[in-house]
Formats: sequence, structure tokens, C-alpha cells
Amino acid sequence: MSILVVGSVAFDAIETPFGKTDKIIGGAATYIAIVSSYFSKQVYLVGVVGGDFPMSVIEDFKQRNINVDGLEIKQNEKSFFWSGKYHEDMNSRDTLITELNVLANFEPKILPIHQQAEFLMLGNLAPDIQRGVLQKLGRRPKLVVMDTMNFWMEIARRSLLETIKLTDVLVINDEEARQLSGVKNLKHAAEAILKLGPKVLVIKKGEHGAMLFAKTGEFFNSPALLLDRVIDPTGAGDCFAAGFLSYLSQQHYISFDAMKHAILYGSVMASFCVEEFGTNGIMYLTQDKIQERYQYLLKTTQV
Amino acid sequence: MSILVVGSVAFDAIETPFGKTDKIIGGAATYIAIVSSYFSKQVYLVGVVGGDFPMSVIEDFKQRNINVDGLEIKQNEKSFFWSGKYHEDMNSRDTLITELNVLANFEPKILPIHQQAEFLMLGNLAPDIQRGVLQKLGRRPKLVVMDTMNFWMEIARRSLLETIKLTDVLVINDEEARQLSGVKNLKHAAEAILKLGPKVLVIKKGEHGAMLFAKTGEFFNSPALLLDRVIDPTGAGDCFAAGFLSYLSQQHYISFDAMKHAILYGSVMASFCVEEFGTNGIMYLTQDKIQERYQYLLKTTQV
Repeated sequence: MSILVVGSVAFDAIETPFGKTDKIIGGAATYIAIVSSYFSKQVYLVGVVGGDFPMSVIEDFKQRNINVDGLEIKQNEKSFFWSGKYHEDMNSRDTLITELNVLANFEPKILPIHQQAEFLMLGNLAPDIQRGVLQKLGRRPKLVVMDTMNFWMEIARRSLLETIKLTDVLVINDEEARQLSGVKNLKHAAEAILKLGPKVLVIKKGEHGAMLFAKTGEFFNSPALLLDRVIDPTGAGDCFAAGFLSYLSQQHYISFDAMKHAILYGSVMASFCVEEFGTNGIMYLTQDKIQERYQYLLKTTQV
Repeated sequence: MSILVVGSVAFDAIETPFGKTDKIIGGAATYIAIVSSYFSKQVYLVGVVGGDFPMSVIEDFKQRNINVDGLEIKQNEKSFFWSGKYHEDMNSRDTLITELNVLANFEPKILPIHQQAEFLMLGNLAPDIQRGVLQKLGRRPKLVVMDTMNFWMEIARRSLLETIKLTDVLVINDEEARQLSGVKNLKHAAEAILKLGPKVLVIKKGEHGAMLFAKTGEFFNSPALLLDRVIDPTGAGDCFAAGFLSYLSQQHYISFDAMKHAILYGSVMASFCVEEFGTNGIMYLTQDKIQERYQYLLKTTQV
């Protein structure tokens, strides 16, 4: 089924203990759209870039059957740019540069073709922009998944809470869950967050896996894949969310059991991402590679 | 089947963000023997205490069917005492006091009744003492599981490597695995450690679960239980190792599949431990409570 992806399409410059990149292609919606394209032939990308963004990348999106009618190009402006440096353990990072550029006045272009989308992925963005997308959609999608980050908890908490209330699945990491809830114990933090409105909460723990909490009280806990190498965590959370949502977009009925498998697909897609800098790890996947890693995850986590 | 437990029986004084204890009963072999007593009616405890150690605790061991013939009491000396303070996140701790006392010259008393033991748990001790136990046993047990810690990697590395070589299953935490191998990536660290001799390596990751690596290349990865409260991590690693080994002691054949379930039982027993200070969390368990938590772990980790 069709997936509408809203989020940043951008340039990143990344430094990790394994090396350093110049400006490379990044942005939440970039990672999400690419991952989703392995699961759905109807992926709609909504975002904004500047005149500096390479047309070859947009061509590549099209080649992947990603519809880019909603990707606005502001010829006289510059694309969003983020630069960051990961610490030794790669679990934390410092932001070195954030140039909002085109994102400063981003108004997602929701076109008639987007109205039919059954799955909506709200990549990390200002929460009022995320909520605006929901308001512009005439009918509510079958499933709304949103990502956010600590930054919005600090500077736009009220708006964030309003957006979370309208969301089906909130996907955040453990530190963000603690910050959002003000509760240290993750079980209690999850309970507090589910009271904010979402039906389901996914807490990502990076190399330590992910946890799935439902308002019904159902719970699932999964380790991540143990990898030979982790080169660059940038985009891993986006790939996780995209794997989760786009696996569900293939299911007729979104049961809790389906969401368990979706968690595993999220882990699989994130695992490819972190093995290379930027989007390199997810650019050249095949269905066989995805299935092989999914089967391996099953084999090594199921008794 | 019978389980021989060798290790410290001691006093601890513990401070965590949740409170502070006076001198309470601790020691690796204490935790291991208590946990094992829920799985086996033939647990043999070998250790040493001073005249200051309460007879009531030794009586309690006996009530649990723990054979204490190998627990030496040095009336004119003092028991081993450790005091530590956990940091805010409880993943790390500072040792405040270590008084070796009776442990300074500990020579495990291996009696004829110990010779029949089929399972040997070498709790954390100087590696030459651990190795000495193996040498004193006339026949090799069916399974030898050992624990150790970073301290021995620093001051007795050569002896530690000799002991590890003689072990079937080495159980250590992630930081210890990195330190022992000198390798940061845990997959490669595990490969390096398996080359040191053990057939199986268990890497404990505390709240993040545990990983099981076999020389055959088989691998299993499990999350830990998500708990309402974690009060005191002291002894959790010992309880994990004891749950792992003593579940296996009930099996006719120690397959890799059996070891997967043993990992889950290890997690279950560790989860009880951390919910209270010292041994309080494991003192009053029932088979029902253990089974209930094991079933919950299965339910929340299996797709």
C-alpha cells in the first residue's frame, strides 16, 4: 500500500571514529523513502531542497519508484545542512553545524495524489509542521507513524504533545523517552507516554535493540543485530522507523503480532544503514539481502 | 544433577541511588548457591568465612538443601568484606572498600563428596584458585562454567588465560569481554575470546540482555526483562550465571538449544536479584514465580 513520507532531504557532513565525510546526501525523509522503496512501489516523498541539491539524487529517487512530485525545489535557496561528530562509543554525538536554509520556512506541499496515502511517516521535523500535514490530509491515513527528537521537547513541547496525541505510533529512542516523560525507568516512561495519546510506542535502543509498547498492555522486546562493523549511525533511526512502517504497509491487518515482525524489519534496515557512511548502506540492497538478514535475526533471537 | 559452587561468601555494604545498606550478606557463591537451590537438590557450596559470619545464614543454606560441608569457618578471622557505590545509571560502580580477610589465603576444601559433582560453577575468584579446584577434582565435571572480572585481567592475566583455557563456558560482561580481548566490537571480541579455549562464551549486558556464542559459530541474542524497578545490581551477574548453569543441570543433553533457554533462565534469576538490595530478591522465590517470569520473557521476546 502507499506510503507518504514527510521530512528533511538534506546535506550532511559526518565524522565518526571511522572517518569523515564531505557534504553527502542525508535527511530523514531521504533515508525513510529509500528504505520504504524496498517494501512498496507507491512511496510519495514530501520535502524541500535548494537549488544546490543534485538532480542526480532526485533522478535516483524516481528510479526507485519514489514519487517526488511533493519534493519542492527552491532554486535560489540552499538545502538544509547538518554536520555532526560522533563520540568514541557512537552512542552520542555533537552537532557542529545546523543550517536550516530551505527548512526555515518549510510548508509541506500536500498534493491530490497524496490524499490517497494509507500510511503516513512523519519524519523528524518541527511538530507544528508534522501536525500541519495531518490537517491537510482530507482523510486520516490507516496508520500514522512519527519520529521526533529531544530538540523539539525542549523548544516546542506544547506543539509536540499536540502532534503526539494525533499519532498512532511514536518512534523515539530511550533517552528521548526519558526526556519526554520525565521518568527514568523505561517501563514507567512508556506508560506515561502512552497516556499522551499514541496507541503504540516504539523505543529504540540503538545497538541494544528496540521495545514495542501498546496501549493494550502488550509488549515486545527485541535485541538488535550484532554487526561486524558499525561505521556511521546517522539515519539508523529513520531506517528503523521506515522498515517498521513499510513492512506494516504490506500487511492486510495491523495486529500486534505484525508489529513484532515490523520491529525486526526495522532492526534489519537500521543494521544495513550503520555499516556504511550516510545512505551508502541502504542504496544497493536486494530483497534477498533483506530476507537473509531478517531470517538471521529470527534464528539468533528465537528459542 | 549435582552442582559444585566455589566462590566468595561475604559481607557487602552497598549504596545505590535507591538507598544504602549496612553490612549485609553477599558474595558470589552465596548468590549462586541460593539460585541453584531452586533448580537442584544437590548443591555443594565451597568457600570460607570468618567467625563473624552469622550461623543463621549457614542454617538457611542448609534449609535450602545447600550442602555446606565445604564452607570453612575460620573462627579467629574476619569474613571477606566489599563495599561499593553505584553511579546514577547503575551500569557502573566504584569500589569503596575491599577487605580480603579470610579470602587472602583461601584454599578451597574439596571433599570426597564434591568429586561426584557433574556441574562446576567457578564464581569470581583469583584465577589460580579457580584452576586449583579443577585440579583437585579427580574427574572432570560434565560442564565447567566460570565467571571472572576486570581486576584479574589487570593483575593476573596469564593465570586467568590458563584457567579460561580449561573452562567450558566463560560468563563475563560486555566491558570485560572488550578488556579481555582488546577488541571493541563485541562480535570480534567474542571470536577472539573463543580462541582462548572455552567452547562457549556468554556476554552479559545488564539491562540490555545477554549474548551466547559457541565455538561452532552458533549465536543467540536475548534482551533482558524490562523491570518496574532496579534497586541494586549487586549479585545480578552471579544469579545470571547460576540460572544458566543450574537450568542446564536439569537437562539430559546440553545442546545449543538448551543453552538458549538457559540464557533466559539466567535473565529471569538476575531480574529477581536486582529488584531488592543484596540477596533479598532471591531469598523467597517459588517455582511458580520463576516459571511465570520465564513464560513472560518468552511471550515478550518471541514473535
